[in-house]
Amino acid sequence: MAQFTRLIRFESDNGKSYIADLGKEILEPPSAGSSITAFKSFDDLVSKAGPETVTLQKLLAPLPRDDLPIYCVGLNYKTHALEASLQVTKTPPLWTKPAATLANPGQDILMNDHCATSFPDYEGELVFVTSRTCKDLTESEAADAILGYTIGNDLSCRLFQLPTQGGGQFFYAKAFDNFAPIGPTLVSKDEFSMSKKLTLRVNGEIRQEADFEKDMVFSPAKVLSFMSQGTTIPAYTAVMSGTPAGVGAFMKPKQFLKNGDVVEVVLPGVGELRNKIVFQ
Amino acid sequence: MAQFTRLIRFESDNGKSYIADLGKEILEPPSAGSSITAFKSFDDLVSKAGPETVTLQKLLAPLPRDDLPIYCVGLNYKTHALEASLQVTKTPPLWTKPAATLANPGQDILMNDHCATSFPDYEGELVFVTSRTCKDLTESEAADAILGYTIGNDLSCRLFQLPTQGGGQFFYAKAFDNFAPIGPTLVSKDEFSMSKKLTLRVNGEIRQEADFEKDMVFSPAKVLSFMSQGTTIPAYTAVMSGTPAGVGAFMKPKQFLKNGDVVEVVLPGVGELRNKIVFQ
Repeated sequence: MAQFTRLIRFESDNGKSYIADLGKEILEPPSAGSSITAFKSFDDLVSKAGPETVTLQKLLAPLPRDDLPIYCVGLNYKTHALEASLQVTKTPPLWTKPAATLANPGQDILMNDHCATSFPDYEGELVFVTSRTCKDLTESEAADAILGYTIGNDLSCRLFQLPTQGGGQFFYAKAFDNFAPIGPTLVSKDEFSMSKKLTLRVNGEIRQEADFEKDMVFSPAKVLSFMSQGTTIPAYTAVMSGTPAGVGAFMKPKQFLKNGDVVEVVLPGVGELRNKIVFQ
Repeated sequence: MAQFTRLIRFESDNGKSYIADLGKEILEPPSAGSSITAFKSFDDLVSKAGPETVTLQKLLAPLPRDDLPIYCVGLNYKTHALEASLQVTKTPPLWTKPAATLANPGQDILMNDHCATSFPDYEGELVFVTSRTCKDLTESEAADAILGYTIGNDLSCRLFQLPTQGGGQFFYAKAFDNFAPIGPTLVSKDEFSMSKKLTLRVNGEIRQEADFEKDMVFSPAKVLSFMSQGTTIPAYTAVMSGTPAGVGAFMKPKQFLKNGDVVEVVLPGVGELRNKIVFQ
Protein backbone atom coordinates (compact mmCIF):
# COMPACT_ATOMS: atom_id res chain seq x y z
CA MET A 1 0.00 0.00 0.00
CA ALA A 2 1.24 3.47 -0.85
CA GLN A 3 2.53 5.54 2.09
CA PHE A 4 0.42 8.49 0.96
CA THR A 5 -1.77 9.72 -1.89
CA ARG A 6 -1.40 13.47 -2.24
CA LEU A 7 0.98 15.22 0.08
CA ILE A 8 1.23 18.88 1.08
CA ARG A 9 3.73 20.69 3.29
CA PHE A 10 2.74 23.91 4.99
CA GLU A 11 3.54 26.42 7.67
CA SER A 12 1.05 26.53 10.50
CA ASP A 13 0.01 29.62 12.46
CA ASN A 14 2.35 28.36 15.21
CA GLY A 15 5.28 29.04 12.83
CA LYS A 16 6.26 25.39 12.42
CA SER A 17 6.19 23.34 9.21
CA TYR A 18 4.00 20.26 8.81
CA ILE A 19 3.28 17.54 6.29
CA ALA A 20 -0.19 16.16 5.59
CA ASP A 21 -1.79 13.67 3.24
CA LEU A 22 -4.91 15.01 1.51
CA GLY A 23 -6.00 11.49 0.56
CA LYS A 24 -7.64 10.34 -2.68
CA GLU A 25 -10.71 12.52 -2.72
CA ILE A 26 -9.26 15.98 -2.14
CA LEU A 27 -7.48 17.20 -5.29
CA GLU A 28 -6.62 20.76 -4.27
CA PRO A 29 -4.81 21.95 -1.13
CA PRO A 30 -7.10 23.49 1.48
CA SER A 31 -7.04 27.27 1.78
CA ALA A 32 -5.29 29.30 4.50
CA GLY A 33 -7.12 29.11 7.81
CA SER A 34 -8.23 25.50 7.28
CA SER A 35 -7.84 23.07 10.16
CA ILE A 36 -5.93 19.94 9.18
CA THR A 37 -4.44 16.77 10.71
CA ALA A 38 -0.74 16.83 10.02
CA PHE A 39 2.68 15.47 11.03
CA LYS A 40 6.00 17.09 11.94
CA SER A 41 7.95 15.22 9.25
CA PHE A 42 7.51 12.84 6.33
CA ASP A 43 8.83 9.95 8.47
CA ASP A 44 6.18 10.73 11.11
CA LEU A 45 3.49 10.79 8.43
CA VAL A 46 4.57 7.36 7.16
CA SER A 47 4.60 5.86 10.66
CA LYS A 48 1.52 7.90 11.70
CA ALA A 49 3.49 9.15 14.73
CA GLY A 50 2.18 12.13 16.68
CA PRO A 51 -0.58 13.54 14.47
CA GLU A 52 -1.60 17.11 15.36
CA THR A 53 -4.56 19.21 14.35
CA VAL A 54 -3.18 22.53 13.19
CA THR A 55 -4.19 25.54 11.11
CA LEU A 56 -2.74 25.90 7.62
CA GLN A 57 -1.27 29.34 7.14
CA LYS A 58 0.96 29.09 4.05
CA LEU A 59 1.72 26.27 1.61
CA LEU A 60 5.38 25.21 1.27
CA ALA A 61 7.00 23.23 -1.53
CA PRO A 62 5.76 19.65 -0.92
CA LEU A 63 9.16 17.98 -0.41
CA PRO A 64 10.20 15.84 2.58
CA ARG A 65 13.54 17.77 2.60
CA ASP A 66 14.13 21.37 1.52
CA ASP A 67 17.91 21.55 2.02
CA LEU A 68 19.09 19.59 -1.02
CA PRO A 69 20.19 20.79 -4.46
CA ILE A 70 17.49 20.24 -7.10
CA TYR A 71 18.54 18.30 -10.19
CA CYS A 72 17.55 19.62 -13.62
CA VAL A 73 17.30 17.86 -16.98
CA GLY A 74 17.78 19.72 -20.26
CA LEU A 75 16.51 19.05 -23.78
CA ASN A 76 14.10 16.37 -22.57
CA TYR A 77 11.24 17.15 -24.95
CA LYS A 78 11.52 16.67 -28.69
CA THR A 79 9.47 19.84 -29.32
CA HIS A 80 11.80 21.93 -27.13
CA ALA A 81 14.96 20.56 -28.78
CA LEU A 82 13.37 21.49 -32.11
CA GLU A 83 12.51 25.09 -31.11
CA ALA A 84 16.05 25.49 -29.71
CA SER A 85 17.55 24.05 -32.95
CA LEU A 86 19.45 21.50 -30.85
CA GLN A 87 19.90 17.75 -31.27
CA VAL A 88 18.46 15.36 -28.72
CA THR A 89 21.48 14.01 -26.81
CA LYS A 90 22.59 10.41 -26.13
CA THR A 91 22.20 10.91 -22.38
CA PRO A 92 20.18 13.47 -20.39
CA PRO A 93 21.93 16.85 -19.96
CA LEU A 94 22.06 17.42 -16.19
CA TRP A 95 22.87 20.20 -13.76
CA THR A 96 21.59 21.42 -10.40
CA LYS A 97 19.88 24.38 -8.78
CA PRO A 98 21.12 25.19 -5.23
CA ALA A 99 18.81 24.48 -2.27
CA ALA A 100 18.18 28.24 -1.91
CA THR A 101 16.38 28.28 -5.28
CA LEU A 102 13.40 26.42 -3.77
CA ALA A 103 10.25 28.55 -3.60
CA ASN A 104 6.72 27.87 -2.40
CA PRO A 105 3.36 27.84 -4.16
CA GLY A 106 2.00 31.40 -4.18
CA GLN A 107 5.33 32.97 -3.24
CA ASP A 108 6.34 36.15 -5.07
CA ILE A 109 9.57 35.62 -7.03
CA LEU A 110 11.71 38.66 -6.19
CA MET A 111 14.26 39.61 -8.83
CA ASN A 112 16.95 42.24 -8.37
CA ASP A 113 18.28 44.27 -11.32
CA HIS A 114 20.94 41.66 -12.09
CA CYS A 115 18.18 39.13 -12.85
CA ALA A 116 15.43 41.45 -14.07
CA THR A 117 17.65 42.81 -16.88
CA SER A 118 18.97 39.39 -17.92
CA PHE A 119 15.93 38.08 -19.82
CA PRO A 120 14.10 36.07 -17.15
CA ASP A 121 12.03 33.22 -18.56
CA TYR A 122 9.81 30.35 -17.37
CA GLU A 123 10.01 26.58 -17.87
CA GLY A 124 7.05 24.48 -16.74
CA GLU A 125 8.22 21.03 -15.66
CA LEU A 126 7.19 17.70 -14.23
CA VAL A 127 9.19 17.12 -11.02
CA PHE A 128 9.88 13.73 -9.49
CA VAL A 129 11.26 13.02 -6.02
CA THR A 130 13.43 10.07 -4.92
CA SER A 131 12.21 7.83 -2.09
CA ARG A 132 15.62 6.60 -0.95
CA THR A 133 19.38 6.95 -1.38
CA CYS A 134 20.17 5.91 -4.96
CA LYS A 135 23.41 4.60 -6.45
CA ASP A 136 24.06 2.50 -9.58
CA LEU A 137 20.35 1.80 -10.15
CA THR A 138 19.00 -0.07 -13.15
CA GLU A 139 16.03 1.54 -14.86
CA SER A 140 13.60 -0.77 -13.10
CA GLU A 141 15.22 -0.15 -9.70
CA ALA A 142 15.02 3.58 -10.45
CA ALA A 143 11.30 3.34 -11.26
CA ASP A 144 10.87 1.78 -7.84
CA ALA A 145 12.93 4.53 -6.13
CA ILE A 146 10.56 7.34 -7.16
CA LEU A 147 8.45 8.59 -4.25
CA GLY A 148 6.07 10.70 -6.31
CA TYR A 149 5.48 13.54 -8.72
CA THR A 150 4.84 17.26 -8.51
CA ILE A 151 5.36 20.25 -10.82
CA GLY A 152 7.72 23.20 -10.89
CA ASN A 153 8.99 26.21 -12.76
CA ASP A 154 12.70 26.14 -13.72
CA LEU A 155 13.09 29.94 -13.87
CA SER A 156 16.10 30.99 -15.97
CA CYS A 157 17.87 34.24 -16.92
CA ARG A 158 18.58 33.56 -20.59
CA LEU A 159 21.45 36.07 -20.87
CA PHE A 160 23.63 33.82 -18.72
CA GLN A 161 22.94 30.72 -20.83
CA LEU A 162 24.75 32.27 -23.81
CA PRO A 163 28.13 30.68 -24.65
CA THR A 164 29.86 34.10 -24.73
CA GLN A 165 28.62 34.90 -21.21
CA GLY A 166 29.31 31.76 -19.21
CA GLY A 167 30.62 29.23 -21.72
CA GLY A 168 27.17 27.69 -22.23
CA GLN A 169 26.94 26.22 -18.73
CA PHE A 170 23.29 26.55 -17.62
CA PHE A 171 23.87 26.46 -13.85
CA TYR A 172 24.32 30.16 -13.10
CA ALA A 173 21.33 31.30 -15.19
CA LYS A 174 19.04 29.12 -13.09
CA ALA A 175 20.64 29.35 -9.64
CA PHE A 176 19.14 32.59 -8.30
CA ASP A 177 17.26 32.54 -4.99
CA ASN A 178 13.63 31.39 -5.37
CA PHE A 179 14.10 30.36 -9.01
CA ALA A 180 12.58 26.92 -8.34
CA PRO A 181 8.96 27.19 -7.20
CA ILE A 182 7.58 23.66 -6.68
CA GLY A 183 4.13 22.34 -5.71
CA PRO A 184 1.38 22.53 -4.59
CA THR A 185 1.01 18.75 -3.96
CA LEU A 186 3.24 15.68 -4.28
CA VAL A 187 1.28 12.77 -5.75
CA SER A 188 2.37 9.25 -4.86
CA LYS A 189 3.91 7.31 -7.76
CA ASP A 190 1.07 4.75 -7.55
CA GLU A 191 -1.60 7.43 -7.91
CA PHE A 192 0.15 9.43 -10.63
CA SER A 193 -0.76 9.16 -14.32
CA MET A 194 1.61 10.19 -17.14
CA SER A 195 -1.38 10.64 -19.44
CA LYS A 196 -2.41 14.03 -18.04
CA LYS A 197 -0.97 17.14 -19.70
CA LEU A 198 0.98 19.91 -17.95
CA THR A 199 0.12 23.47 -18.94
CA LEU A 200 2.00 26.71 -18.30
CA ARG A 201 0.22 30.07 -18.50
CA VAL A 202 1.55 33.63 -18.26
CA ASN A 203 -1.14 36.10 -17.17
CA GLY A 204 -3.71 33.52 -18.23
CA GLU A 205 -2.29 32.92 -21.73
CA ILE A 206 -1.27 29.33 -22.45
CA ARG A 207 2.43 29.18 -23.42
CA GLN A 208 3.42 25.54 -22.87
CA GLU A 209 1.65 22.20 -22.96
CA ALA A 210 3.61 19.05 -22.07
CA ASP A 211 2.60 15.65 -23.36
CA PHE A 212 4.74 13.36 -21.21
CA GLU A 213 3.88 10.19 -23.09
CA LYS A 214 4.50 11.46 -26.64
CA ASP A 215 7.09 14.20 -26.27
CA MET A 216 9.42 13.31 -23.37
CA VAL A 217 12.80 11.87 -24.44
CA PHE A 218 14.13 10.28 -21.22
CA SER A 219 11.55 8.93 -18.76
CA PRO A 220 11.95 9.75 -15.05
CA ALA A 221 13.24 6.20 -14.42
CA LYS A 222 15.80 6.50 -17.25
CA VAL A 223 16.95 9.89 -15.92
CA LEU A 224 17.28 8.63 -12.34
CA SER A 225 19.13 5.48 -13.39
CA PHE A 226 21.64 7.57 -15.38
CA MET A 227 21.96 10.15 -12.59
CA SER A 228 22.82 7.44 -10.07
CA GLN A 229 25.69 5.74 -11.94
CA GLY A 230 28.79 6.09 -9.80
CA THR A 231 27.04 8.79 -7.77
CA THR A 232 25.12 8.82 -4.51
CA ILE A 233 21.79 10.63 -4.94
CA PRO A 234 20.27 11.48 -1.53
CA ALA A 235 16.77 10.37 -0.56
CA TYR A 236 14.12 13.05 -1.27
CA THR A 237 16.10 14.66 -4.09
CA ALA A 238 13.77 16.59 -6.43
CA VAL A 239 14.43 16.36 -10.16
CA MET A 240 13.00 18.91 -12.60
CA SER A 241 12.61 16.70 -15.65
CA GLY A 242 12.83 19.22 -18.49
CA THR A 243 10.51 21.57 -20.33
CA PRO A 244 8.51 21.28 -23.58
CA ALA A 245 8.29 23.85 -26.40
CA GLY A 246 6.93 27.32 -25.74
CA VAL A 247 9.50 29.11 -23.57
CA GLY A 248 9.58 32.89 -23.95
CA ALA A 249 13.07 32.96 -25.46
CA PHE A 250 11.88 31.10 -28.57
CA MET A 251 8.61 32.96 -29.12
CA LYS A 252 8.47 35.34 -32.08
CA PRO A 253 8.90 38.03 -30.90
CA LYS A 254 10.68 36.87 -27.73
CA GLN A 255 8.57 37.31 -24.58
CA PHE A 256 10.60 37.52 -21.38
CA LEU A 257 9.03 37.81 -17.94
CA LYS A 258 8.06 41.30 -16.81
CA ASN A 259 7.39 42.84 -13.43
CA GLY A 260 3.95 41.72 -12.21
CA ASP A 261 3.62 38.73 -14.56
CA VAL A 262 1.77 35.80 -13.01
CA VAL A 263 3.07 32.38 -14.06
CA GLU A 264 0.89 29.32 -13.48
CA VAL A 265 1.95 25.72 -13.97
CA VAL A 266 -1.01 23.36 -13.90
CA LEU A 267 -1.31 19.58 -13.90
CA PRO A 268 -4.64 17.88 -13.12
CA GLY A 269 -4.29 15.94 -9.86
CA VAL A 270 -1.21 17.87 -8.75
CA GLY A 271 -2.86 21.28 -8.78
CA GLU A 272 -1.92 24.79 -9.76
CA LEU A 273 1.46 26.40 -8.99
CA ARG A 274 1.02 30.16 -9.20
CA ASN A 275 3.82 32.69 -8.67
CA LYS A 276 4.04 36.41 -9.36
CA ILE A 277 7.26 37.92 -10.72
CA VAL A 278 8.29 41.01 -8.72
CA PHE A 279 11.17 43.21 -9.89
CA GLN A 280 12.79 44.88 -6.87
CA MET B 1 44.13 38.97 13.89
CA ALA B 2 43.46 35.92 11.73
CA GLN B 3 41.35 33.17 13.33
CA PHE B 4 43.87 30.53 12.24
CA THR B 5 46.96 30.07 10.10
CA ARG B 6 46.93 26.62 8.57
CA LEU B 7 43.99 24.39 9.34
CA ILE B 8 43.60 20.60 9.09
CA ARG B 9 40.58 18.38 9.69
CA PHE B 10 41.11 14.77 10.64
CA GLU B 11 39.55 11.64 12.03
CA SER B 12 40.91 10.59 15.40
CA ASP B 13 41.36 7.02 16.62
CA ASN B 14 38.15 7.58 18.63
CA GLY B 15 36.27 7.75 15.30
CA LYS B 16 35.31 11.42 15.63
CA SER B 17 36.40 14.28 13.37
CA TYR B 18 38.41 17.24 14.65
CA ILE B 19 39.80 20.53 13.42
CA ALA B 20 43.24 21.86 14.39
CA ASP B 21 45.42 24.84 13.54
CA LEU B 22 49.00 23.86 12.71
CA GLY B 23 50.19 27.46 13.24
CA LYS B 24 52.77 29.39 11.24
CA GLU B 25 55.78 27.15 11.64
CA ILE B 26 54.41 23.75 10.67
CA LEU B 27 53.89 23.59 6.90
CA GLU B 28 52.91 19.93 6.49
CA PRO B 29 50.18 18.00 8.33
CA PRO B 30 51.51 15.66 11.03
CA SER B 31 51.53 11.95 10.19
CA ALA B 32 49.06 9.34 11.44
CA GLY B 33 49.62 8.49 15.09
CA SER B 34 50.66 12.02 16.05
CA SER B 35 49.17 13.56 19.15
CA ILE B 36 47.56 16.93 18.51
CA THR B 37 45.48 19.60 20.26
CA ALA B 38 42.24 19.93 18.34
CA PHE B 39 38.62 21.12 18.44
CA LYS B 40 35.28 19.50 17.65
CA SER B 41 34.29 22.16 15.10
CA PHE B 42 35.60 25.22 13.33
CA ASP B 43 33.48 27.45 15.61
CA ASP B 44 35.08 25.82 18.66
CA LEU B 45 38.53 26.40 17.18
CA VAL B 46 37.79 30.08 16.64
CA SER B 47 36.46 30.54 20.17
CA LYS B 48 39.10 28.12 21.61
CA ALA B 49 36.26 26.17 23.26
CA GLY B 50 36.95 22.68 24.62
CA PRO B 51 40.37 21.82 23.20
CA GLU B 52 41.20 18.09 23.34
CA THR B 53 44.46 16.23 22.87
CA VAL B 54 43.73 13.45 20.40
CA THR B 55 45.55 11.10 18.05
CA LEU B 56 45.42 11.83 14.32
CA GLN B 57 44.39 8.75 12.40
CA LYS B 58 43.36 9.98 8.95
CA LEU B 59 43.35 13.39 7.28
CA LEU B 60 39.99 14.71 6.02
CA ALA B 61 39.34 17.50 3.51
CA PRO B 62 40.09 20.70 5.51
CA LEU B 63 36.65 22.31 5.26
CA PRO B 64 34.53 23.55 8.18
CA ARG B 65 31.49 21.88 6.50
CA ASP B 66 31.51 18.77 4.30
CA ASP B 67 27.81 18.65 3.38
CA LEU B 68 27.65 21.46 0.81
CA PRO B 69 27.88 21.35 -2.97
CA ILE B 70 31.29 22.48 -4.24
CA TYR B 71 31.27 25.29 -6.82
CA CYS B 72 33.47 24.93 -9.92
CA VAL B 73 34.77 27.57 -12.33
CA GLY B 74 35.55 26.74 -15.95
CA LEU B 75 37.93 28.32 -18.46
CA ASN B 76 39.61 30.42 -15.78
CA TYR B 77 43.17 30.22 -17.15
CA LYS B 78 44.17 31.76 -20.45
CA THR B 79 46.47 28.79 -21.21
CA HIS B 80 43.64 26.29 -20.65
CA ALA B 81 41.18 28.24 -22.84
CA LEU B 82 43.88 28.22 -25.53
CA GLU B 83 44.52 24.45 -25.37
CA ALA B 84 40.74 23.86 -25.45
CA SER B 85 40.37 26.22 -28.45
CA LEU B 86 37.74 28.17 -26.51
CA GLN B 87 37.28 31.90 -25.96
CA VAL B 88 37.61 33.38 -22.50
CA THR B 89 34.05 34.30 -21.46
CA LYS B 90 32.60 37.59 -20.20
CA THR B 91 31.68 36.03 -16.86
CA PRO B 92 33.05 32.90 -15.11
CA PRO B 93 31.41 29.65 -16.30
CA LEU B 94 30.02 28.02 -13.14
CA TRP B 95 28.57 24.70 -12.06
CA THR B 96 28.67 22.51 -8.94
CA LYS B 97 29.86 19.13 -7.74
CA PRO B 98 27.50 17.42 -5.25
CA ALA B 99 28.61 17.11 -1.59
CA ALA B 100 29.27 13.37 -2.13
CA THR B 101 32.12 14.22 -4.52
CA LEU B 102 34.29 15.41 -1.61
CA ALA B 103 37.30 13.15 -0.98
CA ASN B 104 40.14 13.29 1.52
CA PRO B 105 43.90 13.65 1.11
CA GLY B 106 45.36 10.18 0.58
CA GLN B 107 42.01 8.59 -0.22
CA ASP B 108 41.86 6.10 -3.10
CA ILE B 109 39.49 7.35 -5.82
CA LEU B 110 37.36 4.31 -6.68
CA MET B 111 35.94 4.29 -10.20
CA ASN B 112 33.39 1.77 -11.47
CA ASP B 113 33.28 0.74 -15.16
CA HIS B 114 30.92 3.61 -16.02
CA CYS B 115 33.64 6.09 -15.00
CA ALA B 116 36.76 4.08 -15.81
CA THR B 117 35.73 3.69 -19.48
CA SER B 118 34.65 7.33 -19.90
CA PHE B 119 38.10 8.99 -20.17
CA PRO B 120 38.79 10.04 -16.58
CA ASP B 121 41.06 13.06 -16.30
CA TYR B 122 42.58 15.34 -13.66
CA GLU B 123 42.38 19.10 -13.08
CA GLY B 124 44.65 20.63 -10.45
CA GLU B 125 42.98 23.70 -8.91
CA LEU B 126 43.28 26.42 -6.32
CA VAL B 127 40.27 26.16 -3.98
CA PHE B 128 38.91 29.00 -1.88
CA VAL B 129 36.38 28.76 0.94
CA THR B 130 33.82 31.36 2.02
CA SER B 131 33.86 32.65 5.61
CA ARG B 132 30.20 33.67 5.80
CA THR B 133 26.85 33.67 4.01
CA CYS B 134 27.29 35.73 0.84
CA LYS B 135 24.72 37.58 -1.25
CA ASP B 136 25.07 40.52 -3.66
CA LEU B 137 28.70 41.15 -2.69
CA THR B 138 30.91 43.72 -4.38
CA GLU B 139 34.38 42.52 -5.34
CA SER B 140 35.92 44.09 -2.25
CA GLU B 141 33.26 42.61 0.05
CA ALA B 142 33.89 39.24 -1.62
CA ALA B 143 37.65 39.51 -0.98
CA ASP B 144 36.78 40.00 2.67
CA ALA B 145 34.41 36.99 2.69
CA ILE B 146 37.13 34.48 1.77
CA LEU B 147 38.16 32.35 4.75
CA GLY B 148 41.21 30.79 3.13
CA TYR B 149 42.74 28.72 0.38
CA THR B 150 43.48 25.07 -0.26
CA ILE B 151 43.95 22.90 -3.36
CA GLY B 152 41.92 20.22 -5.09
CA ASN B 153 41.53 17.95 -8.06
CA ASP B 154 38.38 18.49 -10.18
CA LEU B 155 38.27 14.91 -11.54
CA SER B 156 36.23 14.66 -14.75
CA CYS B 157 35.08 11.91 -17.14
CA ARG B 158 35.65 13.65 -20.48
CA LEU B 159 33.17 11.48 -22.43
CA PHE B 160 30.29 13.13 -20.61
CA GLN B 161 31.50 16.66 -21.39
CA LEU B 162 30.91 16.13 -25.12
CA PRO B 163 27.95 18.06 -26.60
CA THR B 164 26.55 14.91 -28.24
CA GLN B 165 26.51 13.08 -24.89
CA GLY B 166 25.01 15.55 -22.43
CA GLY B 167 24.53 18.74 -24.40
CA GLY B 168 27.85 20.18 -23.23
CA GLN B 169 26.79 20.58 -19.60
CA PHE B 170 29.84 19.75 -17.44
CA PHE B 171 27.99 18.80 -14.24
CA TYR B 172 27.50 15.06 -14.78
CA ALA B 173 31.08 14.41 -15.95
CA LYS B 174 32.38 15.79 -12.67
CA ALA B 175 29.71 14.66 -10.20
CA PHE B 176 30.82 11.10 -9.41
CA ASP B 177 31.43 10.11 -5.79
CA ASN B 178 34.89 11.13 -4.54
CA PHE B 179 35.65 13.17 -7.67
CA ALA B 180 36.67 16.21 -5.56
CA PRO B 181 39.69 15.43 -3.37
CA ILE B 182 40.60 18.58 -1.41
CA GLY B 183 43.43 19.37 1.02
CA PRO B 184 45.62 18.75 2.93
CA THR B 185 45.55 22.15 4.69
CA LEU B 186 43.43 25.30 4.51
CA VAL B 187 45.61 28.41 4.70
CA SER B 188 44.11 31.59 6.12
CA LYS B 189 43.55 34.35 3.55
CA ASP B 190 46.01 36.57 5.46
CA GLU B 191 48.78 33.98 5.29
CA PHE B 192 48.20 32.93 1.69
CA SER B 193 50.29 34.19 -1.21
CA MET B 194 49.10 34.13 -4.84
CA SER B 195 52.73 34.22 -5.99
CA LYS B 196 53.39 30.51 -5.35
CA LYS B 197 52.79 28.09 -8.23
CA LEU B 198 50.49 25.05 -8.13
CA THR B 199 51.83 21.86 -9.73
CA LEU B 200 50.02 18.68 -10.73
CA ARG B 201 51.93 15.43 -11.27
CA VAL B 202 50.77 12.03 -12.51
CA ASN B 203 53.06 9.21 -11.32
CA GLY B 204 55.70 11.84 -10.62
CA GLU B 205 55.55 13.48 -14.07
CA ILE B 206 54.66 17.19 -14.05
CA ARG B 207 51.54 17.81 -16.16
CA GLN B 208 50.21 21.18 -14.97
CA GLU B 209 51.73 24.32 -13.49
CA ALA B 210 49.43 27.18 -12.48
CA ASP B 211 50.62 30.76 -12.31
CA PHE B 212 47.75 32.44 -10.47
CA GLU B 213 49.05 35.97 -10.96
CA LYS B 214 49.78 35.78 -14.70
CA ASP B 215 47.36 33.18 -16.04
CA MET B 216 44.12 33.34 -14.03
CA VAL B 217 41.24 35.21 -15.73
CA PHE B 218 38.81 35.87 -12.85
CA SER B 219 40.32 36.32 -9.36
CA PRO B 220 38.69 34.50 -6.42
CA ALA B 221 37.08 37.79 -5.29
CA LYS B 222 35.69 38.45 -8.81
CA VAL B 223 34.33 34.88 -8.98
CA LEU B 224 32.71 35.08 -5.53
CA SER B 225 31.17 38.49 -6.20
CA PHE B 226 29.63 37.20 -9.45
CA MET B 227 28.48 33.94 -7.81
CA SER B 228 26.67 35.86 -5.08
CA GLN B 229 24.53 38.17 -7.27
CA GLY B 230 20.90 37.37 -6.52
CA THR B 231 21.98 34.13 -4.87
CA THR B 232 22.65 33.07 -1.30
CA ILE B 233 26.02 31.29 -1.06
CA PRO B 234 26.29 29.42 2.27
CA ALA B 235 29.19 30.03 4.67
CA TYR B 236 32.05 27.52 4.19
CA THR B 237 31.26 26.89 0.52
CA ALA B 238 34.34 25.60 -1.30
CA VAL B 239 35.01 26.90 -4.82
CA MET B 240 37.34 25.09 -7.22
CA SER B 241 38.64 28.06 -9.17
CA GLY B 242 39.55 26.46 -12.51
CA THR B 243 42.48 24.62 -14.03
CA PRO B 244 45.47 25.74 -16.15
CA ALA B 245 46.78 24.07 -19.32
CA GLY B 246 48.02 20.49 -19.26
CA VAL B 247 44.95 18.30 -18.73
CA GLY B 248 45.19 14.77 -20.18
CA ALA B 249 42.44 15.34 -22.75
CA PHE B 250 44.54 17.94 -24.58
CA MET B 251 47.90 16.16 -24.47
CA LYS B 252 49.17 14.72 -27.74
CA PRO B 253 48.52 11.82 -27.62
CA LYS B 254 45.69 12.12 -25.07
CA GLN B 255 46.60 10.69 -21.64
CA PHE B 256 43.58 9.68 -19.55
CA LEU B 257 43.90 8.33 -16.01
CA LYS B 258 44.60 4.62 -15.66
CA ASN B 259 44.13 2.14 -12.85
CA GLY B 260 46.87 2.69 -10.26
CA ASP B 261 47.85 6.19 -11.38
CA VAL B 262 48.88 8.46 -8.53
CA VAL B 263 47.85 12.11 -8.93
CA GLU B 264 49.54 14.75 -6.80
CA VAL B 265 48.50 18.40 -6.57
CA VAL B 266 51.14 20.48 -4.80
CA LEU B 267 51.22 24.09 -3.61
CA PRO B 268 53.96 25.32 -1.28
CA GLY B 269 52.42 26.27 2.07
CA VAL B 270 49.24 24.25 1.44
CA GLY B 271 51.00 20.90 1.01
CA GLU B 272 50.62 17.88 -1.19
CA LEU B 273 47.29 16.30 -2.14
CA ARG B 274 47.97 12.73 -3.25
CA ASN B 275 45.29 10.30 -4.47
CA LYS B 276 45.52 6.95 -6.21
CA ILE B 277 43.05 6.07 -8.98
CA VAL B 278 41.57 2.60 -8.43
CA PHE B 279 39.38 0.96 -11.10
CA GLN B 280 36.91 -1.40 -9.43
